[in-house]
Amino acid sequence: MNPAPIVFTTRSYEYLSDEICELGRFERGEIETRTFPDGERYQRLCTHVSGRDVFLVGGTVSDDDSLELFDLACAIVKYGADRLTLVIPYFGYSTMERAIHQGEVVTAKSRTRLISAIPPAARANRVFLLDLHTEGITHYFEGEITPRHISARKVIAQAARELGGDDFVLACTDAGRAKWVEFLANDLGMDAAFVFKRRVDDRQTEVTAVSAQVQDKNVVIYDDMIRTGGSLIHAAEAYAAAGAKSLSAVATHGLFPEDALDRLKKSNLLKRIVVTDSHPRAVKLRDGFLQVISVADILVDELRAP
Amino acid sequence: MNPAPIVFTTRSYEYLSDEICELGRFERGEIETRTFPDGERYQRLCTHVSGRDVFLVGGTVSDDDSLELFDLACAIVKYGADRLTLVIPYFGYSTMERAIHQGEVVTAKSRTRLISAIPPAARANRVFLLDLHTEGITHYFEGEITPRHISARKVIAQAARELGGDDFVLACTDAGRAKWVEFLANDLGMDAAFVFKRRVDDRQTEVTAVSAQVQDKNVVIYDDMIRTGGSLIHAAEAYAAAGAKSLSAVATHGLFPEDALDRLKKSNLLKRIVVTDSHPRAVKLRDGFLQVISVADILVDELRAP
Amino acid sequence: MNPAPIVFTTRSYEYLSDEICELGRFERGEIETRTFPDGERYQRLCTHVSGRDVFLVGGTVSDDDSLELFDLACAIVKYGADRLTLVIPYFGYSTMERAIHQGEVVTAKSRTRLISAIPPAARANRVFLLDLHTEGITHYFEGEITPRHISARKVIAQAARELGGDDFVLACTDAGRAKWVEFLANDLGMDAAFVFKRRVDDRQTEVTAVSAQVQDKNVVIYDDMIRTGGSLIHAAEAYAAAGAKSLSAVATHGLFPEDALDRLKKSNLLKRIVVTDSHPRAVKLRDGFLQVISVADILVDELRAP
Amino acid sequence: MNPAPIVFTTRSYEYLSDEICELGRFERGEIETRTFPDGERYQRLCTHVSGRDVFLVGGTVSDDDSLELFDLACAIVKYGADRLTLVIPYFGYSTMERAIHQGEVVTAKSRTRLISAIPPAARANRVFLLDLHTEGITHYFEGEITPRHISARKVIAQAARELGGDDFVLACTDAGRAKWVEFLANDLGMDAAFVFKRRVDDRQTEVTAVSAQVQDKNVVIYDDMIRTGGSLIHAAEAYAAAGAKSLSAVATHGLFPEDALDRLKKSNLLKRIVVTDSHPRAVKLRDGFLQVISVADILVDELRAP
Amino acid sequence: MNPAPIVFTTRSYEYLSDEICELGRFERGEIETRTFPDGERYQRLCTHVSGRDVFLVGGTVSDDDSLELFDLACAIVKYGADRLTLVIPYFGYSTMERAIHQGEVVTAKSRTRLISAIPPAARANRVFLLDLHTEGITHYFEGEITPRHISARKVIAQAARELGGDDFVLACTDAGRAKWVEFLANDLGMDAAFVFKRRVDDRQTEVTAVSAQVQDKNVVIYDDMIRTGGSLIHAAEAYAAAGAKSLSAVATHGLFPEDALDRLKKSNLLKRIVVTDSHPRAVKLRDGFLQVISVADILVDELRAP
Amino acid sequence: MNPAPIVFTTRSYEYLSDEICELGRFERGEIETRTFPDGERYQRLCTHVSGRDVFLVGGTVSDDDSLELFDLACAIVKYGADRLTLVIPYFGYSTMERAIHQGEVVTAKSRTRLISAIPPAARANRVFLLDLHTEGITHYFEGEITPRHISARKVIAQAARELGGDDFVLACTDAGRAKWVEFLANDLGMDAAFVFKRRVDDRQTEVTAVSAQVQDKNVVIYDDMIRTGGSLIHAAEAYAAAGAKSLSAVATHGLFPEDALDRLKKSNLLKRIVVTDSHPRAVKLRDGFLQVISVADILVDELRAP
Repeated sequence: MNPAPIVFTTRSYEYLSDEICELGRFERGEIETRTFPDGERYQRLCTHVSGRDVFLVGGTVSDDDSLELFDLACAIVKYGADRLTLVIPYFGYSTMERAIHQGEVVTAKSRTRLISAIPPAARANRVFLLDLHTEGITHYFEGEITPRHISARKVIAQAARELGGDDFVLACTDAGRAKWVEFLANDLGMDAAFVFKRRVDDRQTEVTAVSAQVQDKNVVIYDDMIRTGGSLIHAAEAYAAAGAKSLSAVATHGLFPEDALDRLKKSNLLKRIVVTDSHPRAVKLRDGFLQVISVADILVDELRAP
Repeated sequence: MNPAPIVFTTRSYEYLSDEICELGRFERGEIETRTFPDGERYQRLCTHVSGRDVFLVGGTVSDDDSLELFDLACAIVKYGADRLTLVIPYFGYSTMERAIHQGEVVTAKSRTRLISAIPPAARANRVFLLDLHTEGITHYFEGEITPRHISARKVIAQAARELGGDDFVLACTDAGRAKWVEFLANDLGMDAAFVFKRRVDDRQTEVTAVSAQVQDKNVVIYDDMIRTGGSLIHAAEAYAAAGAKSLSAVATHGLFPEDALDRLKKSNLLKRIVVTDSHPRAVKLRDGFLQVISVADILVDELRAP
Repeated sequence: MNPAPIVFTTRSYEYLSDEICELGRFERGEIETRTFPDGERYQRLCTHVSGRDVFLVGGTVSDDDSLELFDLACAIVKYGADRLTLVIPYFGYSTMERAIHQGEVVTAKSRTRLISAIPPAARANRVFLLDLHTEGITHYFEGEITPRHISARKVIAQAARELGGDDFVLACTDAGRAKWVEFLANDLGMDAAFVFKRRVDDRQTEVTAVSAQVQDKNVVIYDDMIRTGGSLIHAAEAYAAAGAKSLSAVATHGLFPEDALDRLKKSNLLKRIVVTDSHPRAVKLRDGFLQVISVADILVDELRAP
Repeated sequence: MNPAPIVFTTRSYEYLSDEICELGRFERGEIETRTFPDGERYQRLCTHVSGRDVFLVGGTVSDDDSLELFDLACAIVKYGADRLTLVIPYFGYSTMERAIHQGEVVTAKSRTRLISAIPPAARANRVFLLDLHTEGITHYFEGEITPRHISARKVIAQAARELGGDDFVLACTDAGRAKWVEFLANDLGMDAAFVFKRRVDDRQTEVTAVSAQVQDKNVVIYDDMIRTGGSLIHAAEAYAAAGAKSLSAVATHGLFPEDALDRLKKSNLLKRIVVTDSHPRAVKLRDGFLQVISVADILVDELRAP
Repeated sequence: MNPAPIVFTTRSYEYLSDEICELGRFERGEIETRTFPDGERYQRLCTHVSGRDVFLVGGTVSDDDSLELFDLACAIVKYGADRLTLVIPYFGYSTMERAIHQGEVVTAKSRTRLISAIPPAARANRVFLLDLHTEGITHYFEGEITPRHISARKVIAQAARELGGDDFVLACTDAGRAKWVEFLANDLGMDAAFVFKRRVDDRQTEVTAVSAQVQDKNVVIYDDMIRTGGSLIHAAEAYAAAGAKSLSAVATHGLFPEDALDRLKKSNLLKRIVVTDSHPRAVKLRDGFLQVISVADILVDELRAP
Repeated sequence: MNPAPIVFTTRSYEYLSDEICELGRFERGEIETRTFPDGERYQRLCTHVSGRDVFLVGGTVSDDDSLELFDLACAIVKYGADRLTLVIPYFGYSTMERAIHQGEVVTAKSRTRLISAIPPAARANRVFLLDLHTEGITHYFEGEITPRHISARKVIAQAARELGGDDFVLACTDAGRAKWVEFLANDLGMDAAFVFKRRVDDRQTEVTAVSAQVQDKNVVIYDDMIRTGGSLIHAAEAYAAAGAKSLSAVATHGLFPEDALDRLKKSNLLKRIVVTDSHPRAVKLRDGFLQVISVADILVDELRAP
């Protein structure tokens, strides 16, 4: 019988690695990490990886996290792992996935290039990604690495039903997500609602129209991620103005930098927000208003699959 | 003074290569092509390419065209071209750019992989692509090739204005294009209209809602490509039912396989369709109903840029 | 115990995949394939390949077949196959394996480049090729893929003996095959005969000499492939003129495009032709004059080898 | 005449880019950089790079700086630069250049891998590095990028002479630098002094011996970099105990994190420290005790070389 | 005006580099080479290569020569050459270009892999090869390097005419070269003659037949290379037995290891042998019997071409 | 149960392969090797490698050995080995690991490039190296190969203790090895001694100082390799002049080209030298003065590790 796969994690994702190791037959990989006075990281793999099947959990939530992940991954390969699977619950820069203006840095592409530059383990490198901002990013990876796009739809759909009840409208915050919302709404057997934005000037837009079905309905706004919540508030205002009975929101990824969550609460537009634990910030902020559901089950299913 | 760049073309795109060579200072590259009884192609570059700046025009409109392009490109590099630029007005399989169901072949990715497998010319390989179905495909290319996404917006916007007049609504055929339509509508200073589709069963959908602004308006439906025209007809019916005063359509790419154009004409929904000459099929079918505008100007601007 | 390897096939080679699956312990892989009105192929792997040992049978008999093979292969790897082996009974363009004149496209090289561009499966990619026109093509492949050249000599030698009887001369159609014929003649313990061609003009040659041993002998002409049969007819005429008692032909690959087989029959030079089922065209044309022998046994031996 | 090369810089190195642009005929490249509330960077190249010779100045002083450099470099290539030269005055993690214990992450290698993953510009990528901790790192880079190791010896030797006067001993802080000190001492025509350290326990060492020549001499301690200054203080104590008349220090790179510089001052062992401006921290801290000399001259010589 | 290209050479080919530099406008590159007592080579490029167009002449006539060439080539690239062209007049191991028996090392392929592993210079790497044993080897190279196969036919044909006079038969030593001989004979307007060999046992063969046209004719035997001359002697004996009036030989490459040339002389079969100076051994042995003609002209034509 | 791994060897290392096969459960791989009159090697793998775990032992002690190793390695991979591990007890050119002067060929880098160019086996390529001259060379390898640096410290420390007795000084020959000696001295609990060299002119240096602790002590000089022994003699003279009671030497690698060993004996400075059998030359020269200890045990431990 083969030994259990090893699960390593970056420091920010220890909570998720804990959940995964509780659910499946995995060996927890130990890493010694120190930070030197000049800010450089010392890292040592304390668990031997040679010939082993290795998972490394870590989101690219910051540059530090990204390079901590990259450095560990390179070392896991060079110390002889048989297979390396990166498990990236939150893929940073996924909204910088194309250039709108000449000269813009498409950081989503350079991040996939970074991960593609990890040397291949004996048998293979794989990367598992959860609810990417656009599906296409899966195909930005280059060379030998095998990406797998994992959907959180199972837990998102359940959360939407709990928020919206028997009859609700699934609404989007932006025309760019219309297809996703349409798809999920069809899955749920509900109607979908959209907003149209008009550019006021170079930096600002205003919502000018809402499709008409929200009057006296429970509206669940669905997006792949909530960052500052600005778009969410503008959309919620539009749906409220269009007569929505109640409003709530569900998203895979919740970041809420700085006082973003407070501002959402104080807007008094939404009765509740549900996100997954794909980003460590959401886990830290969870409370009565912000409900956090786990993706560990979904991930473990994929980690166990051949 | 450097010699003029050489412009080669696959057989299907000779019309476009002709237009390009008329507009710019280019040397026309000669290719001898024969087909053997067993179907294999004999190709010979009659113009010497060693040390030269070379453009190769050719859309991936079929498997034959794709490999004709690939074989020529490999030869141009191996005979020593200084730089090779593929000019691909129509990139086939761009709608197979992600897997909806497990096991689906993402042919758009394997086509970018094909082009990325052309060995690099001395100075570089570049690929110019026109109005891709999704912008993300630009980043599917791997390794050293440099993609450039060229927009036909300039001629499309002009065509939309000619079709719609001073006041019209720019409308989409599908929620997946909502963002594009929103973007162009904002550019034109016009309103945008969307449709919502409900899945009837596994293969069929029906349009169930239209945003309300089309009543008594001229509606110009805008899409990146028209193939059989099925979506276009369904959308047009919905906009007609919602009270549109007149309907027309504009798209970058027009394919109209088999009797597609006839069916569009016979539907009597649209007064006119405008597409560019990015696909040779459109060029063959042009008539009073189907207006074909050239992208040669747009391409030559890019070919001339450093 | 490991699960049986999966055998997929392109559509043209279903007959051979059937034979292989009957002979060995393999799981037949299912593929859903549809062609859209615009000519694009939709393909879906219905059998899960993740972690599996996968064979994909398909000759590069046309551009469509070549890209069908390429697209499937890329998908098999990206869906996580442990190992991928391409089984290519007929490798198209193998006679375009070098440039005679400046500027000629060496399509055999660009086809090996195409196959080398399939991303590597977890454990490895392999390509099995049968009786290539020149052995050197095995070494045209680049990067990580491992080519294996499989010889059909076992069945060819047996067929030659059946055609020629106890005492015959093994003859060639062209000086370029002299070494092959010499080699097989030595294996069979028979004499070999050659022809010498003189170039009449740029496109035409005439046979001007035959080595002397064919008088009153049964002559079996051996070539790696028969396409239109033109060279075969010219060689047969020369051997007939030199006094051969009877003439027949054996080859690994039989293409016979258009009316090629009819012309061979009507020439009344050969009593019979034997080819293998490496090309689907031969399988379709088999009759009393054209005998088709199977290479499934030979292939299965290689598929089973470690 | 070719246009002047463009010089871009990361934000931390604007001071050095300014110095370079004052010294040479370069065009200053403009970059728009913003930080979003979630910490992600927006970057846009405002100067067109297509077909141009481009320099990008930036040290890998932190993870943020490293990825800012990487993202910009990828974009410069993808927007068509003819040649890209990274100018890295300080290469972080250069002391993590080999594993002492099993499992240690060799971060210097993964940082060279990161830089090697930048796609190659049309004509080439180059990387210029200044006084690396070990010369070998030059050869850690992979693939097509061309590294060039630039020595600051010219300005270091001059600084040593100014600190030490006509007759001094060049001393090292650690046996690992003995060869470097020996080399520079020979260049200067001075004697060299070494220290020997004994390991007290797993984490601590003590200096136990000094070579005998320092009695009543001016001692200039030379190292490639000063970080916290701990080794420097221990070595200085040993040289002081061995009878040195005066002590000072010179190094290429000065980091002085947190209160390191204060502790060096308060030790009262050294009369002065001289470092170059290769690290932005030294530039910020310069004062009477810490003299900072510029490497701009040295870099410009290399930037101008063919 | 660009500076003249630099021509470097390995030590064995200085004679050819001298000839090339006399014919064309080239700068002679200086290399310092020493051999240490342990047999390791010290090499230093004394001519600066950064930004220059560089040719490196050297045949792979031994392992030492092969690695001297490889090491120099890598250094030329890493010191920044703009373009590197390897000029390989004799490509060793070209007869080990395919495996006859399972397990044989195809050294010709691993030598092309060696050369393909030279990192690419800024603009490109090229490799020029002269009269390869099989044309296919041109396509064994991998990745970015551009091979060019140069024919010595011009000087070989002239030499054959001088040897054979107005009317002669061009003959081969082996069925494997039949196509080459046929091709050249057609070029010369002469007849061609072949031999057929029968395998006596595992190691030995005997010539058993000659095509009949050589009676009372001058016979010029043509091969790509003469090594020990064993095949040449056997073929000459057969042609003599078949009544040839006179015999001579011409080949591109002459190696004549040990006493091979003496044995050829003492056989008294051939009146003269002509080879080119592609191999240094021939240059050393040239005398009245062995005439050596230069390929410098042919090479310079290619070096000057764009 | 998996079959035992196969151990192949180059011809120079048969003695070590024998030792390894006696110690562990390995299958001895058979290779047929012949040398042709023109100096080319014929090699054939007589043991089937497809699907097997393969070790190949061979030091890069000369160009011939290096390419014999390279050719065999390429063939092992192309015949389908599952995993290939190169076991390189002595890595030639490891002292040419950096350029001191402009233009010097860094042969250590081009040799790692050579080994990195071996195509990857199905599961992986690994390279095991023993006591490299600098640790950094481990990171010179590129791409997919996984290097492992093996230390002979276990047998070296034991040999040093046997040479030096209960109380001795561990001394170095050169400041460049000071860190290594310091490290091993600390391991042994002994003092360390150093020498300082002054450059006399461009080619010569003289030892001018020794750290003071060697008076009346047994001195064991430790280096990674002894070549001509010149440095060793100079250092020994310095330690003798400084009053050492007895002198001996220990090194991992012993080359002793030409009459080097005799000169060491005749110097009468050292009572004994101990080296390992990492280089075949030491094995041939072993006698009462030169003791050779085996590294087979150390290697087998690594070969057995996962």
